[in-house]
Amino acid sequence: MTNSFDVAAHDAVDVIIAKRNKLELSDAQIDWVVGAYTRGAVAEEQMSSLAMAILLNGMSRREISRWTAAMIASGERMDYSSLSRPTADKHSTGGVGDKITLPLAPLVAACGVAVPQLSGRGLAHTGGTLDKLEAIPGWRASLSGGEMLRQLEDVGAVICAAGARLAPADKKLYALRDVTGTVEAIPLIASSIMSKKIAEGTRALVLDVKVGSGAFMKDVDSARELARTMVELGTDAGVKTVALLTNMQTPLGLTAGNALEVRESVEVLAGGGPPDVVELTLVLAREMLAAAGRGDVDPADALRDGTAMDVWRRMVAAQGGDPSAALPVARETHQILAPGTGVLTRLDALKVGIAAWRLGAGRARKEDEIQAGAGIELHGKPGAVLRAGDPLMTLHTDTPERFERAIEALQGAYFIAPDDSRPDLLPLVIERIS
Amino acid sequence: MTNSFDVAAHDAVDVIIAKRNKLELSDAQIDWVVGAYTRGAVAEEQMSSLAMAILLNGMSRREISRWTAAMIASGERMDYSSLSRPTADKHSTGGVGDKITLPLAPLVAACGVAVPQLSGRGLAHTGGTLDKLEAIPGWRASLSGGEMLRQLEDVGAVICAAGARLAPADKKLYALRDVTGTVEAIPLIASSIMSKKIAEGTRALVLDVKVGSGAFMKDVDSARELARTMVELGTDAGVKTVALLTNMQTPLGLTAGNALEVRESVEVLAGGGPPDVVELTLVLAREMLAAAGRGDVDPADALRDGTAMDVWRRMVAAQGGDPSAALPVARETHQILAPGTGVLTRLDALKVGIAAWRLGAGRARKEDEIQAGAGIELHGKPGAVLRAGDPLMTLHTDTPERFERAIEALQGAYFIAPDDSRPDLLPLVIERIS
Repeated sequence: MTNSFDVAAHDAVDVIIAKRNKLELSDAQIDWVVGAYTRGAVAEEQMSSLAMAILLNGMSRREISRWTAAMIASGERMDYSSLSRPTADKHSTGGVGDKITLPLAPLVAACGVAVPQLSGRGLAHTGGTLDKLEAIPGWRASLSGGEMLRQLEDVGAVICAAGARLAPADKKLYALRDVTGTVEAIPLIASSIMSKKIAEGTRALVLDVKVGSGAFMKDVDSARELARTMVELGTDAGVKTVALLTNMQTPLGLTAGNALEVRESVEVLAGGGPPDVVELTLVLAREMLAAAGRGDVDPADALRDGTAMDVWRRMVAAQGGDPSAALPVARETHQILAPGTGVLTRLDALKVGIAAWRLGAGRARKEDEIQAGAGIELHGKPGAVLRAGDPLMTLHTDTPERFERAIEALQGAYFIAPDDSRPDLLPLVIERIS
Repeated sequence: MTNSFDVAAHDAVDVIIAKRNKLELSDAQIDWVVGAYTRGAVAEEQMSSLAMAILLNGMSRREISRWTAAMIASGERMDYSSLSRPTADKHSTGGVGDKITLPLAPLVAACGVAVPQLSGRGLAHTGGTLDKLEAIPGWRASLSGGEMLRQLEDVGAVICAAGARLAPADKKLYALRDVTGTVEAIPLIASSIMSKKIAEGTRALVLDVKVGSGAFMKDVDSARELARTMVELGTDAGVKTVALLTNMQTPLGLTAGNALEVRESVEVLAGGGPPDVVELTLVLAREMLAAAGRGDVDPADALRDGTAMDVWRRMVAAQGGDPSAALPVARETHQILAPGTGVLTRLDALKVGIAAWRLGAGRARKEDEIQAGAGIELHGKPGAVLRAGDPLMTLHTDTPERFERAIEALQGAYFIAPDDSRPDLLPLVIERIS
């Protein structure tokens, strides 16, 4: 209908039809549609059919890059050029038991690189960094731009919520995609993540792209495509960007749930903690330091000598939290015992994540309260040798009527092989993309 | 997110994701999503991403048939079983100068078959039957179900607007598709047309599927696919259905515009009129009579002996119109002359339709008034031999400031070949599908 008198009203339809017909959108079309959507001149039902056309027909590297730039331009950009040290940030695509940000941010800060980490809430069966830190009495997620900058200079690390003015187009589009079956579009996932990270102003970025049942990307190929797309976007925007594909077939560490994961993170900062959490924390810290030009520093030293723990305590205190306070504990527990003797060959991240969610560690609706103490403690990981009746996991909740549906979610979540077979596991770090 | 607590809220997303992933939707999914959309429980932005997924991934015959049934079930069905004669209806997918319904309905009624024709308004550059008839002083488009039934029994033909209770799901979805780039989905076009025709209660139906620049289907392959899909839907619903693919590369007849087309239709009923309009009217009348079991009657007789004209006058009068009243005439005219001598080899339906629209024969926005007298008169059709300076077409409007943009739309609309080349034309009836 480009021949109508009413040309302006048809611009959105023209953009939709172009993408529907597998054409590349022009820079002007992308700038216009993202801007007009942000100010409400493109309707939600128009953006949702465009999102579906993007999901099914894809976007070129140029289109994704321009789309990301348009989302950044919809809001404010932050600027850390006044800081006395370089910055590096990390983003994880989300998983079960993924508390890595908690030990990682203070560890990297202890090594001389500032970490401006804007984090999110839990989504479906995956936990959210802000939800975890809110288990610490007094801690608050919201900081002003000025508070954030001061804390970065004084403490070196900040983990807080993104302000409403950072990429508002993304906030609106994300909520729309969630209800219109258009979450899984790689161009839209990549531009959503990268618009926030680029607008946030970091100079170096390490992406932890999770692969496996507990991740949003279930297979290595789609995770690799997402990682490559994001590395290209970061590079095009002048951010030194590296991605690791890491294993999310099985939960990270031995806990899934907010206070439980804070406790485990503090153990890592104290020099202990589960080997996979320690390893991934150190791998990501080395990548962040290298990307920020401090590849000569060994982060393992800062874990050993307590300087990372010291930054953690100052970081928590700077945001009103009491790092010495007792963490919330769920009112009720229920143990699941090993049903037989043998080797634990499978422990499924998705099922554990859903069970933790059902126990109260996550929200069913946006407005739900979460239970800080709820979640799951694992007493063994794949490869462990168990005897029938050994404790396998402990479920925690304040509301014991939730046990039943959590146990239901755990059907088929684990397998104990009666012979001496070894689990066939993906490595923790599957691939590096730079 | 099928593992959420909040399963009901995710049903729409499940349906969208299934179609997005190229799965067939179940009968239950289709019934639910169409019903829930009609009552507002599925949001506009959800239906639009589903419509885009249907457009790009298609639907099976079973899915389209069920979708059509669900749209019919969203409203009322009409019932003509009490009538003393059989019924037959016609639907055209829309074109430029397509006034065929006007002579056709009284002609078929004059041959003993009742025609319950629910018609629509103009859309984009194509004219609408109701807009044309409203050029007749006093004529009204809205009838109650009882009035319609009485007129069918007494006069044998009725052309009126569909009531709000006929396939309300289609009304809502049609308006949504118009603004979300999802008009051109064959499953959705076919189910939209056929849900109304089946709900309307006719036992026989002839589909005039237009092909060419002035039609919504630009090529024979897509027109054939649409025609086959609709014939299958009609047949599955127990309606005797036949489709003709007909030429819409060039306008039908010598007029495009409301009062101009009424005048031309009356000429046909009086035994004159342009040969292509007469031919298509008779071809479609024969198909309707055959489908209704009256294949023995020759409709050419009813044109010749004036009985079709008699039904026309009674049909117009029954809906408040004065068949003897003078038709509206536009206040201003502008002639376009042949720029050279030779054979007219091209006269593009789309460009003529857009020019007529811009002169005031159609609406730019739903709420616009149309000009009953506006439009275009053609002084020759492809194949005509012209001399430089001969009149080629006359533009009519009440608002002469519109001439400029109409003339602009006519750039490249016609071509006069200086040698004795013949135009390479599609036949009027390209193919028959039953």
